[in-house]
Amino acid sequence: MNIPNLQIALDNNNLEDALLCLQEIAEYVDIIEAGTILCLNEGMKAVKYIKTLYPDKILLADTKCADAGKTVANNCKLAGADWMTVICSATLPTMKAAFDIMSDLQVELYGDWTFEHAKSWYDLGIRQVVYHQSRDSLLSGGSWGEKDLNKIEKLIDMGFKVSVTGGLDYDKIDLFRNLDVYTFIVGRGLREADNPAEEAAKWKKRLEEIWG
Amino acid sequence: MNIPNLQIALDNNNLEDALLCLQEIAEYVDIIEAGTILCLNEGMKAVKYIKTLYPDKILLADTKCADAGKTVANNCKLAGADWMTVICSATLPTMKAAFDIMSDLQVELYGDWTFEHAKSWYDLGIRQVVYHQSRDSLLSGGSWGEKDLNKIEKLIDMGFKVSVTGGLDYDKIDLFRNLDVYTFIVGRGLREADNPAEEAAKWKKRLEEIWG
Repeated sequence: MNIPNLQIALDNNNLEDALLCLQEIAEYVDIIEAGTILCLNEGMKAVKYIKTLYPDKILLADTKCADAGKTVANNCKLAGADWMTVICSATLPTMKAAFDIMSDLQVELYGDWTFEHAKSWYDLGIRQVVYHQSRDSLLSGGSWGEKDLNKIEKLIDMGFKVSVTGGLDYDKIDLFRNLDVYTFIVGRGLREADNPAEEAAKWKKRLEEIWG
Repeated sequence: MNIPNLQIALDNNNLEDALLCLQEIAEYVDIIEAGTILCLNEGMKAVKYIKTLYPDKILLADTKCADAGKTVANNCKLAGADWMTVICSATLPTMKAAFDIMSDLQVELYGDWTFEHAKSWYDLGIRQVVYHQSRDSLLSGGSWGEKDLNKIEKLIDMGFKVSVTGGLDYDKIDLFRNLDVYTFIVGRGLREADNPAEEAAKWKKRLEEIWG
Protein backbone atom coordinates (compact mmCIF):
# COMPACT_ATOMS: atom_id res chain seq x y z
CA MET A 1 0.00 0.00 0.00
CA ASN A 2 1.07 3.58 -0.61
CA ILE A 3 1.47 6.10 2.18
CA PRO A 4 -1.75 8.15 2.20
CA ASN A 5 -1.60 11.87 1.51
CA LEU A 6 -2.41 14.36 4.21
CA GLN A 7 -4.81 17.11 3.14
CA ILE A 8 -5.59 20.17 5.22
CA ALA A 9 -9.20 21.36 4.82
CA LEU A 10 -9.18 25.12 5.17
CA ASP A 11 -12.79 25.60 6.17
CA ASN A 12 -11.98 28.96 7.66
CA ASN A 13 -14.43 31.84 7.46
CA ASN A 14 -11.77 34.21 6.20
CA LEU A 15 -8.59 34.15 4.19
CA GLU A 16 -6.39 35.63 6.94
CA ASP A 17 -7.08 32.68 9.25
CA ALA A 18 -6.54 30.23 6.40
CA LEU A 19 -3.15 31.75 5.55
CA LEU A 20 -2.14 31.83 9.20
CA CYS A 21 -2.91 28.12 9.45
CA LEU A 22 -0.88 27.38 6.30
CA GLN A 23 2.07 29.36 7.59
CA GLU A 24 2.25 26.89 10.46
CA ILE A 25 1.53 23.57 8.78
CA ALA A 26 1.94 23.80 5.00
CA GLU A 27 5.27 21.98 5.09
CA TYR A 28 3.61 18.87 6.53
CA VAL A 29 0.69 18.53 4.13
CA ASP A 30 0.55 17.17 0.59
CA ILE A 31 -2.70 18.77 -0.51
CA ILE A 32 -4.21 22.11 0.46
CA GLU A 33 -7.99 22.37 0.27
CA ALA A 34 -9.67 25.74 -0.07
CA GLY A 35 -12.81 24.66 1.79
CA THR A 36 -16.36 25.33 0.63
CA ILE A 37 -16.90 27.71 3.55
CA LEU A 38 -13.76 29.66 2.60
CA CYS A 39 -14.59 29.75 -1.13
CA LEU A 40 -18.17 30.89 -0.50
CA ASN A 41 -16.99 33.59 1.88
CA GLU A 42 -13.90 34.90 0.12
CA GLY A 43 -14.43 33.78 -3.44
CA MET A 44 -11.68 32.61 -5.79
CA LYS A 45 -9.40 35.23 -4.26
CA ALA A 46 -8.71 32.60 -1.60
CA VAL A 47 -7.56 30.11 -4.21
CA LYS A 48 -5.37 32.74 -5.91
CA TYR A 49 -3.60 33.74 -2.71
CA ILE A 50 -2.96 30.17 -1.65
CA LYS A 51 -1.58 29.11 -5.06
CA THR A 52 0.65 32.19 -5.13
CA LEU A 53 2.08 31.50 -1.69
CA TYR A 54 2.29 27.70 -2.00
CA PRO A 55 2.81 26.99 -5.72
CA ASP A 56 4.33 23.54 -5.13
CA LYS A 57 1.40 22.07 -3.22
CA ILE A 58 -1.59 20.44 -4.88
CA LEU A 59 -4.44 22.90 -4.43
CA LEU A 60 -8.01 21.65 -4.32
CA ALA A 61 -11.00 23.98 -4.62
CA ASP A 62 -13.83 22.33 -2.67
CA THR A 63 -16.64 23.82 -4.72
CA LYS A 64 -18.96 20.80 -4.39
CA CYS A 65 -20.10 21.82 -7.86
CA ALA A 66 -23.65 20.76 -8.73
CA ASP A 67 -24.16 22.52 -12.05
CA ALA A 68 -22.43 24.71 -14.62
CA GLY A 69 -19.39 22.44 -14.43
CA LYS A 70 -17.54 24.16 -17.25
CA THR A 71 -17.85 27.68 -15.84
CA VAL A 72 -17.02 26.68 -12.28
CA ALA A 73 -14.03 24.60 -13.43
CA ASN A 74 -12.76 27.40 -15.65
CA ASN A 75 -12.95 29.85 -12.77
CA CYS A 76 -11.17 27.43 -10.42
CA LYS A 77 -8.43 26.77 -12.95
CA LEU A 78 -7.99 30.46 -13.67
CA ALA A 79 -7.55 31.08 -9.94
CA GLY A 80 -4.86 28.41 -9.72
CA ALA A 81 -6.65 25.30 -8.44
CA ASP A 82 -5.28 21.94 -9.58
CA TRP A 83 -8.31 19.90 -8.57
CA MET A 84 -11.92 20.62 -7.69
CA THR A 85 -14.84 18.73 -6.20
CA VAL A 86 -18.30 17.98 -7.57
CA ILE A 87 -21.27 16.77 -5.54
CA CYS A 88 -22.41 13.19 -6.16
CA SER A 89 -25.89 14.37 -7.19
CA ALA A 90 -24.51 16.46 -10.07
CA THR A 91 -25.49 15.10 -13.46
CA LEU A 92 -22.91 13.22 -15.54
CA PRO A 93 -22.71 16.09 -18.09
CA THR A 94 -21.81 18.45 -15.22
CA MET A 95 -19.10 16.10 -13.99
CA LYS A 96 -17.76 15.60 -17.49
CA ALA A 97 -17.69 19.34 -18.20
CA ALA A 98 -15.63 19.95 -15.06
CA PHE A 99 -13.42 16.89 -15.54
CA ASP A 100 -12.50 18.00 -19.07
CA ILE A 101 -11.01 21.21 -17.66
CA MET A 102 -9.35 20.36 -14.35
CA SER A 103 -6.29 18.16 -14.06
CA ASP A 104 -8.28 16.01 -11.64
CA LEU A 105 -11.72 15.88 -10.05
CA GLN A 106 -13.13 14.44 -6.84
CA VAL A 107 -16.75 13.33 -6.38
CA GLU A 108 -18.05 14.11 -2.90
CA LEU A 109 -20.20 11.32 -1.49
CA TYR A 110 -23.20 12.66 0.41
CA GLY A 111 -26.71 11.28 0.84
CA ASP A 112 -28.00 8.22 -1.00
CA TRP A 113 -25.33 7.70 -3.63
CA THR A 114 -25.08 4.15 -4.96
CA PHE A 115 -22.29 1.97 -6.33
CA GLU A 116 -24.16 2.09 -9.63
CA HIS A 117 -23.66 5.86 -9.63
CA ALA A 118 -20.00 5.30 -8.76
CA LYS A 119 -19.66 2.97 -11.75
CA SER A 120 -21.04 5.69 -14.05
CA TRP A 121 -18.44 8.17 -12.72
CA TYR A 122 -15.72 5.60 -13.24
CA ASP A 123 -16.90 5.10 -16.80
CA LEU A 124 -16.43 8.84 -17.36
CA GLY A 125 -12.78 8.43 -16.35
CA ILE A 126 -13.15 9.89 -12.86
CA ARG A 127 -10.88 8.15 -10.35
CA GLN A 128 -11.19 10.16 -7.14
CA VAL A 129 -14.04 10.10 -4.61
CA VAL A 130 -14.32 11.59 -1.14
CA TYR A 131 -15.99 9.45 1.50
CA HIS A 132 -17.62 11.61 4.15
CA GLN A 133 -18.97 11.59 7.56
CA SER A 134 -21.00 14.78 7.24
CA ARG A 135 -20.00 17.45 9.73
CA ASP A 136 -23.63 17.90 10.68
CA SER A 137 -24.18 14.15 11.05
CA LEU A 138 -21.18 13.99 13.37
CA LEU A 139 -22.65 16.84 15.39
CA SER A 140 -25.83 14.74 15.61
CA GLY A 141 -23.89 11.81 17.09
CA GLY A 142 -22.78 9.84 14.02
CA SER A 143 -19.33 8.22 13.92
CA TRP A 144 -17.05 6.02 11.83
CA GLY A 145 -17.90 2.32 11.79
CA GLU A 146 -17.61 -1.01 9.99
CA LYS A 147 -20.27 0.03 7.48
CA ASP A 148 -18.12 2.95 6.37
CA LEU A 149 -14.97 0.86 6.13
CA ASN A 150 -16.75 -1.72 3.97
CA LYS A 151 -17.99 0.92 1.55
CA ILE A 152 -14.55 2.49 1.33
CA GLU A 153 -13.02 -0.91 0.60
CA LYS A 154 -15.56 -1.54 -2.14
CA LEU A 155 -14.79 1.83 -3.76
CA ILE A 156 -11.06 1.06 -3.63
CA ASP A 157 -11.73 -2.36 -5.18
CA MET A 158 -13.63 -0.62 -8.01
CA GLY A 159 -10.43 1.29 -8.78
CA PHE A 160 -11.08 4.60 -7.03
CA LYS A 161 -8.57 6.64 -5.09
CA VAL A 162 -10.56 7.29 -1.95
CA SER A 163 -10.11 10.26 0.34
CA VAL A 164 -11.75 10.04 3.74
CA THR A 165 -12.97 12.92 5.84
CA GLY A 166 -15.24 13.98 8.64
CA GLY A 167 -14.35 14.34 12.28
CA LEU A 168 -10.97 12.68 11.78
CA ASP A 169 -8.44 13.13 14.53
CA TYR A 170 -5.16 11.40 15.23
CA ASP A 171 -6.75 8.70 17.36
CA LYS A 172 -8.91 7.52 14.45
CA ILE A 173 -6.10 6.84 11.94
CA ASP A 174 -5.68 3.23 13.03
CA LEU A 175 -9.29 2.42 12.11
CA PHE A 176 -8.25 2.58 8.46
CA ARG A 177 -5.02 0.58 8.74
CA ASN A 178 -6.15 -2.25 6.47
CA LEU A 179 -7.32 0.04 3.69
CA ASP A 180 -5.36 1.60 0.84
CA VAL A 181 -6.64 5.09 1.69
CA TYR A 182 -5.47 7.69 -0.84
CA THR A 183 -5.81 10.77 1.33
CA PHE A 184 -6.80 11.71 4.85
CA ILE A 185 -8.57 15.06 4.85
CA VAL A 186 -8.30 16.79 8.18
CA GLY A 187 -9.80 20.14 9.11
CA ARG A 188 -10.40 21.08 12.72
CA GLY A 189 -8.28 18.12 13.85
CA LEU A 190 -5.29 20.14 12.63
CA ARG A 191 -6.50 23.74 12.58
CA GLU A 192 -7.76 23.64 16.14
CA ALA A 193 -4.97 21.58 17.66
CA ASP A 194 -3.01 23.24 20.48
CA ASN A 195 0.03 23.12 18.25
CA PRO A 196 -1.05 22.58 14.61
CA ALA A 197 2.49 22.06 13.29
CA GLU A 198 3.27 19.40 15.90
CA GLU A 199 -0.08 17.72 15.26
CA ALA A 200 0.49 17.66 11.49
CA ALA A 201 3.99 16.24 11.98
CA LYS A 202 2.53 13.54 14.26
CA TRP A 203 -0.02 12.65 11.58
CA LYS A 204 2.65 12.34 8.89
CA LYS A 205 4.78 10.12 11.13
CA ARG A 206 1.86 7.83 11.94
CA LEU A 207 0.81 7.52 8.28
CA GLU A 208 4.38 6.46 7.46
CA GLU A 209 4.47 4.00 10.34
CA ILE A 210 1.25 2.24 9.28
CA TRP A 211 1.41 2.43 5.50
CA GLY A 212 5.15 2.86 4.90
CA MET B 1 -53.56 30.23 -8.34
CA ASN B 2 -51.16 32.95 -7.26
CA ILE B 3 -49.06 34.93 -9.71
CA PRO B 4 -45.62 33.30 -9.70
CA ASN B 5 -42.61 35.29 -8.57
CA LEU B 6 -39.92 36.23 -11.03
CA GLN B 7 -36.38 35.52 -9.81
CA ILE B 8 -33.24 36.70 -11.55
CA ALA B 9 -30.34 34.26 -11.26
CA LEU B 10 -27.15 36.28 -11.16
CA ASP B 11 -24.77 33.59 -12.33
CA ASN B 12 -22.27 36.20 -13.38
CA ASN B 13 -18.55 35.65 -13.00
CA ASN B 14 -18.05 38.99 -11.31
CA LEU B 15 -19.92 41.42 -9.12
CA GLU B 16 -19.68 44.35 -11.54
CA ASP B 17 -21.64 42.49 -14.21
CA ALA B 18 -24.19 41.34 -11.64
CA LEU B 19 -24.77 44.90 -10.40
CA LEU B 20 -25.01 46.21 -13.95
CA CYS B 21 -27.71 43.64 -14.67
CA LEU B 22 -29.62 44.59 -11.52
CA GLN B 23 -29.43 48.27 -12.38
CA GLU B 24 -31.43 47.45 -15.49
CA ILE B 25 -33.96 44.92 -14.26
CA ALA B 26 -34.24 44.95 -10.46
CA GLU B 27 -37.53 46.81 -10.54
CA TYR B 28 -39.18 43.93 -12.42
CA VAL B 29 -38.06 41.03 -10.27
CA ASP B 30 -39.34 39.77 -6.92
CA ILE B 31 -36.34 37.75 -5.86
CA ILE B 32 -32.65 38.34 -6.52
CA GLU B 33 -30.41 35.27 -6.55
CA ALA B 34 -26.70 35.60 -5.93
CA GLY B 35 -25.82 32.58 -8.09
CA THR B 36 -23.43 29.81 -7.11
CA ILE B 37 -20.95 30.94 -9.75
CA LEU B 38 -21.04 34.50 -8.40
CA CYS B 39 -20.75 33.43 -4.74
CA LEU B 40 -17.85 31.08 -5.47
CA ASN B 41 -16.04 33.77 -7.45
CA GLU B 42 -16.71 36.87 -5.34
CA GLY B 43 -17.59 35.41 -1.97
CA MET B 44 -20.18 36.85 0.41
CA LYS B 45 -19.10 40.32 -0.68
CA ALA B 46 -21.52 39.84 -3.58
CA VAL B 47 -24.40 39.19 -1.19
CA LYS B 48 -23.47 42.21 0.93
CA TYR B 49 -23.36 44.62 -2.01
CA ILE B 50 -26.65 43.40 -3.45
CA LYS B 51 -28.48 43.62 -0.10
CA THR B 52 -27.09 47.10 0.48
CA LEU B 53 -28.24 48.34 -2.92
CA TYR B 54 -31.56 46.47 -3.04
CA PRO B 55 -32.67 46.12 0.58
CA ASP B 56 -36.35 45.65 -0.28
CA LYS B 57 -35.90 42.62 -2.52
CA ILE B 58 -35.79 39.07 -1.26
CA LEU B 59 -32.17 38.00 -1.60
CA LEU B 60 -31.30 34.34 -2.09
CA ALA B 61 -27.76 33.01 -1.72
CA ASP B 62 -27.51 30.00 -4.02
CA THR B 63 -24.90 28.17 -1.99
CA LYS B 64 -26.17 24.66 -2.82
CA CYS B 65 -24.92 23.84 0.66
CA ALA B 66 -23.98 20.18 1.18
CA ASP B 67 -22.44 20.31 4.65
CA ALA B 68 -21.67 22.63 7.56
CA GLY B 69 -25.21 24.02 7.31
CA LYS B 70 -24.92 26.14 10.43
CA THR B 71 -21.70 27.90 9.41
CA VAL B 72 -22.75 28.49 5.81
CA ALA B 73 -26.17 29.78 6.89
CA ASN B 74 -24.65 32.07 9.51
CA ASN B 75 -22.29 33.52 6.92
CA CYS B 76 -25.12 34.04 4.42
CA LYS B 77 -27.32 35.69 7.03
CA LEU B 78 -24.48 37.92 8.19
CA ALA B 79 -23.95 39.06 4.60
CA GLY B 80 -27.63 39.93 4.25
CA ALA B 81 -29.21 36.95 2.51
CA ASP B 82 -32.86 36.19 3.33
CA TRP B 83 -32.90 32.70 1.91
CA MET B 84 -30.31 30.13 0.88
CA THR B 85 -30.24 26.84 -1.00
CA VAL B 86 -29.11 23.37 0.05
CA ILE B 87 -28.41 20.47 -2.29
CA CYS B 88 -30.86 17.55 -2.16
CA SER B 89 -28.08 15.14 -1.21
CA ALA B 90 -27.24 17.05 1.97
CA THR B 91 -28.07 15.12 5.11
CA LEU B 92 -31.17 16.07 7.12
CA PRO B 93 -29.02 17.45 9.98
CA THR B 94 -27.31 19.79 7.48
CA MET B 95 -30.67 20.98 6.16
CA LYS B 96 -32.04 21.44 9.66
CA ALA B 97 -28.97 23.38 10.80
CA ALA B 98 -29.35 25.81 7.89
CA PHE B 99 -33.15 26.01 8.15
CA ASP B 100 -32.92 26.95 11.83
CA ILE B 101 -30.92 30.05 10.90
CA MET B 102 -32.31 31.38 7.63
CA SER B 103 -35.79 32.84 7.27
CA ASP B 104 -36.40 30.31 4.50
CA LEU B 105 -34.57 27.53 2.70
CA GLN B 106 -34.80 25.94 -0.73
CA VAL B 107 -33.79 22.37 -1.54
CA GLU B 108 -32.20 22.08 -4.99
CA LEU B 109 -33.31 18.97 -6.84
CA TYR B 110 -30.48 17.37 -8.77
CA GLY B 111 -29.74 13.74 -9.59
CA ASP B 112 -31.72 10.83 -8.18
CA TRP B 113 -33.78 12.51 -5.46
CA THR B 114 -36.99 10.70 -4.54
CA PHE B 115 -40.41 11.73 -3.25
CA GLU B 116 -39.52 9.84 -0.10
CA HIS B 117 -36.61 12.26 0.37
CA ALA B 118 -38.99 15.15 -0.32
CA LYS B 119 -41.31 13.85 2.40
CA SER B 120 -38.42 13.86 4.88
CA TRP B 121 -37.62 17.50 4.03
CA TYR B 122 -41.30 18.40 4.42
CA ASP B 123 -41.31 16.72 7.82
CA LEU B 124 -38.44 19.03 8.84
CA GLY B 125 -40.67 21.99 8.01
CA ILE B 126 -39.02 22.84 4.70
CA ARG B 127 -41.54 24.15 2.16
CA GLN B 128 -39.46 25.30 -0.81
CA VAL B 129 -37.85 23.18 -3.50
CA VAL B 130 -36.20 24.10 -6.79
CA TYR B 131 -36.96 21.89 -9.76
CA HIS B 132 -34.11 21.95 -12.26
CA GLN B 133 -33.17 21.20 -15.72
CA SER B 134 -29.44 21.12 -15.14
CA ARG B 135 -27.55 23.65 -17.23
CA ASP B 136 -25.21 20.93 -18.38
CA SER B 137 -28.05 18.54 -19.20
CA LEU B 138 -29.63 21.25 -21.31
CA LEU B 139 -26.33 21.74 -23.10
CA SER B 140 -26.39 17.98 -23.76
CA GLY B 141 -29.77 18.26 -25.46
CA GLY B 142 -32.23 17.80 -22.55
CA SER B 143 -35.44 19.85 -22.42
CA TRP B 144 -38.65 20.38 -20.46
CA GLY B 145 -41.32 17.73 -20.88
CA GLU B 146 -44.41 16.02 -19.50
CA LYS B 147 -42.27 14.03 -17.04
CA ASP B 148 -41.00 17.26 -15.47
CA LEU B 149 -44.47 18.79 -15.27
CA ASN B 150 -45.84 15.68 -13.55
CA LYS B 151 -43.09 15.72 -10.93
CA ILE B 152 -43.61 19.43 -10.30
CA GLU B 153 -47.34 18.85 -9.87
CA LYS B 154 -46.69 16.05 -7.38
CA LEU B 155 -44.37 18.29 -5.35
CA ILE B 156 -47.01 21.05 -5.33
CA ASP B 157 -49.63 18.51 -4.22
CA MET B 158 -47.33 17.51 -1.33
CA GLY B 159 -47.47 21.11 -0.14
CA PHE B 160 -44.22 22.49 -1.55
CA LYS B 161 -43.72 25.91 -3.07
CA VAL B 162 -41.90 24.91 -6.24
CA SER B 163 -39.48 27.14 -8.14
CA VAL B 164 -38.59 26.04 -11.65
CA THR B 165 -35.38 26.76 -13.46
CA GLY B 166 -33.09 25.71 -16.26
CA GLY B 167 -33.04 27.09 -19.80
CA LEU B 168 -36.28 29.01 -19.27
CA ASP B 169 -37.08 31.69 -21.77
CA TYR B 170 -40.24 33.63 -22.47
CA ASP B 171 -41.54 31.11 -24.98
CA LYS B 172 -41.56 28.34 -22.37
CA ILE B 173 -43.80 30.06 -19.79
CA ASP B 174 -47.00 28.64 -21.26
CA LEU B 175 -45.80 25.07 -20.66
CA PHE B 176 -46.47 25.61 -16.96
CA ARG B 177 -49.87 27.32 -17.25
CA ASN B 178 -51.79 24.61 -15.40
CA LEU B 179 -49.39 24.50 -12.46
CA ASP B 180 -49.30 26.64 -9.33
CA VAL B 181 -45.63 27.49 -9.85
CA TYR B 182 -44.22 29.56 -6.97
CA THR B 183 -41.30 31.14 -8.79
CA PHE B 184 -39.75 31.20 -12.23
CA ILE B 185 -35.99 31.46 -11.97
CA VAL B 186 -34.46 32.99 -15.07
CA GLY B 187 -30.78 33.59 -15.69
CA ARG B 188 -29.44 34.00 -19.19
CA GLY B 189 -33.00 34.36 -20.53
CA LEU B 190 -32.99 37.80 -18.90
CA ARG B 191 -29.30 38.66 -18.52
CA GLU B 192 -28.47 37.96 -22.14
CA ALA B 193 -31.61 39.42 -23.70
CA ASP B 194 -31.07 42.28 -26.17
CA ASN B 195 -32.96 44.52 -23.78
CA PRO B 196 -33.06 42.90 -20.32
CA ALA B 197 -35.47 45.45 -18.84
CA GLU B 198 -37.97 45.01 -21.68
CA GLU B 199 -37.64 41.23 -21.46
CA ALA B 200 -38.24 41.24 -17.69
CA ALA B 201 -41.28 43.52 -18.10
CA LYS B 202 -42.62 41.14 -20.76
CA TRP B 203 -42.16 38.19 -18.36
CA LYS B 204 -44.03 39.96 -15.57
CA LYS B 205 -46.89 40.85 -17.90
CA ARG B 206 -47.20 37.27 -19.16
CA LEU B 207 -47.15 35.81 -15.64
CA GLU B 208 -49.98 38.17 -14.71
CA GLU B 209 -51.96 37.28 -17.86
CA ILE B 210 -51.79 33.55 -17.20
CA TRP B 211 -51.93 33.34 -13.41
CA GLY B 212 -53.61 36.65 -12.51
